[in-house]
Amino acid sequence: VIERIVRCVQDVIDECDLKMDQVRGIGIGAPGSVDSAKGVVSFAPNLGWHDVSIAKELSKQLDVPVFLENDCTVSMLGVYHVELQAKPSDVLGIFIGTGIGGGMIIGGQIYRGFTGCAGELGHMVIDIHGPKCGCGNQGCFEALASRTALFQQIRAAVKEGQDTLLTEMLGRDLEDMRSGDLRKAIRRGDKLVARIVKEAAEHTGIAVANLANILGPEMILMGGGVIEALDQEMMPVITKTARDHAMDGALKDVQIVASQLGDHAGITGAAFLARRELSKGSR
Amino acid sequence: VIERIVRCVQDVIDECDLKMDQVRGIGIGAPGSVDSAKGVVSFAPNLGWHDVSIAKELSKQLDVPVFLENDCTVSMLGVYHVELQAKPSDVLGIFIGTGIGGGMIIGGQIYRGFTGCAGELGHMVIDIHGPKCGCGNQGCFEALASRTALFQQIRAAVKEGQDTLLTEMLGRDLEDMRSGDLRKAIRRGDKLVARIVKEAAEHTGIAVANLANILGPEMILMGGGVIEALDQEMMPVITKTARDHAMDGALKDVQIVASQLGDHAGITGAAFLARRELSKGSR
Repeated sequence: VIERIVRCVQDVIDECDLKMDQVRGIGIGAPGSVDSAKGVVSFAPNLGWHDVSIAKELSKQLDVPVFLENDCTVSMLGVYHVELQAKPSDVLGIFIGTGIGGGMIIGGQIYRGFTGCAGELGHMVIDIHGPKCGCGNQGCFEALASRTALFQQIRAAVKEGQDTLLTEMLGRDLEDMRSGDLRKAIRRGDKLVARIVKEAAEHTGIAVANLANILGPEMILMGGGVIEALDQEMMPVITKTARDHAMDGALKDVQIVASQLGDHAGITGAAFLARRELSKGSR
Repeated sequence: VIERIVRCVQDVIDECDLKMDQVRGIGIGAPGSVDSAKGVVSFAPNLGWHDVSIAKELSKQLDVPVFLENDCTVSMLGVYHVELQAKPSDVLGIFIGTGIGGGMIIGGQIYRGFTGCAGELGHMVIDIHGPKCGCGNQGCFEALASRTALFQQIRAAVKEGQDTLLTEMLGRDLEDMRSGDLRKAIRRGDKLVARIVKEAAEHTGIAVANLANILGPEMILMGGGVIEALDQEMMPVITKTARDHAMDGALKDVQIVASQLGDHAGITGAAFLARRELSKGSR
C-alpha cells in the first residue's frame, strides 16, 4: 500500500508539471485509529494494519514532511475550514464510504478525546443481533450502511436469485460495482437496490438520532462517497428517520446536510492539515 | 409532583431543625431534556412532562432561589467536583436508575452541546428490533438495562411461570421491588434474576464500548441506584463486555469505575450547583 501511495504521489506531481522540491508537505488521512503525533496508524481493521509508521515511511521515500490524521478527521478539517468557513461551534461529521467514520468539532476545535481516537462512530452497535462487522462486533453502523455493507447485501440478494438491473449493467458477478451504479439502477426503477439503499438510510437515520442525543451538535454534516453518489435517495430518509427517533429538542434547529465537498472533503482537509502543520513549524 | 417536592423540602428542613430563611438556594436535578437557563423541563418521557417551569414554581412556593439542571448533569457535577476533585479532563458519567442518562466533562467543563441536552445516552438505540422504550423507539439502552427494564423483564418471566426467590421475598405481585432485592436474590442463588441482571450488564457493556468509540473519554464513571445496588454483580461484566467490543485503543488506559457516591451523586451535585450559581450571583 505504501509503495502505491508513493507512486501515486509521484504521478500526481508529474501530471501537474511540478517537481518534488516544490512540494512543502503532504497531508494524509488514514482509516482507523491513528496516533497523529507519532504518524502511526495504530489499528485499521479494513486494511488489517497494526502499528504502521506510515508518516515516517512516506517522508523517507518522498523526502518531504508528511502529516497524518485519521481519514475522517481530515475530511472534517476540510469540510469545517473550507466549506463551513469555521463558522459553527459544534459540528458532527459523518462520512460514509468503504467504512463509516466521524469527525467532531467542539467549540470550534477538532475533538479527538483523551484516547486520541474519538469519533469512531462507525463501530457504534445499533443492532446487537445484526450482521458481523470487520471489527468483530455484530450490527455496527458500518456493517449496516457502509458501501461495503450495501454491496454485500446486493451480492447476497443476487446469489439468492433476486432481480436487479445491476447484473445487466455490470455482469453477473457485479465486478467493479460503484456507489454511482446504485444511483443509476434506482433511477431506472430497480426495486431491490432501492430497498437496500432505503434500509441503509434508515439505519443511518437511527445512528444520527443516537449521536444527536449523545452530543447535541449544532450541525450534522454527512459526507463520503456513498452520500455524494446517493444524496437525493438517502438524505430525505436519513433526515426523517433521525427526527422521528431523536429525543425532543435533540434536533431542534439542528441542520442535517450533505457536504458540498463530497468525496473531495478528504483531500481538501489533508491539504489544510499539511499547510497548518507547516505554518506551526515555521513560527 | 411539585407539591410533593415542596412538602419534601419543608420536611427535610424541619428534620434538620432549620428554618427556610437559613436556606440560601435549592439545586434540583430533573430527568429528561432541561432548559437550565429558563428553569424549564422541556420533555421528560418518564414523567409525561412537556415544558414545565419547575424552578419558577418551586421558587415561588418556597421563597428561595431554585437552580435546575438535568438529573444526570447534576449527578455528574457531584461526582466530578466532589468525588473526583475535578482532576480528570474528560469524563463520561453513565447513571443507571429508573431511566438511564449521562453526563459529560470535556476539558474540565460540563458539556451540554449546542442543543443544551447532550448526554441523553439512555436513548441510544443499540438493538433496533428490541423492546419498546418510553421515548417511542425500540431497543434504547434504557429499555434494555434500566431498573424499569430489569423489573419489567422479571415481572414478565414470573407471569410466564418462571421461578424466582423474589416472589417468596416480596409476594406474587412483586410490589415494592427494589434494586437491592435483586442483589439479595442473586446472592441466595436465584438463577432467573442472575441471568436478567447479567444480560443488562452485557447491554451496558456494549453501550460503554459505543460511547468510548465515539467520545474517547479518559475515565468512565458508572453511577445510579442500579449500579450502587448491583456493583459487584454488574461491573465485572460491564467492563469485560466493553473491552471486548470497543475498538483497539478506545479503552486503552481508560478506567471504568463505579462511583463511590452511589445514589448520593445527585444530591451532592444539586448542592454543588446551587452553591456555584449563588456564588456567581454574588460576584
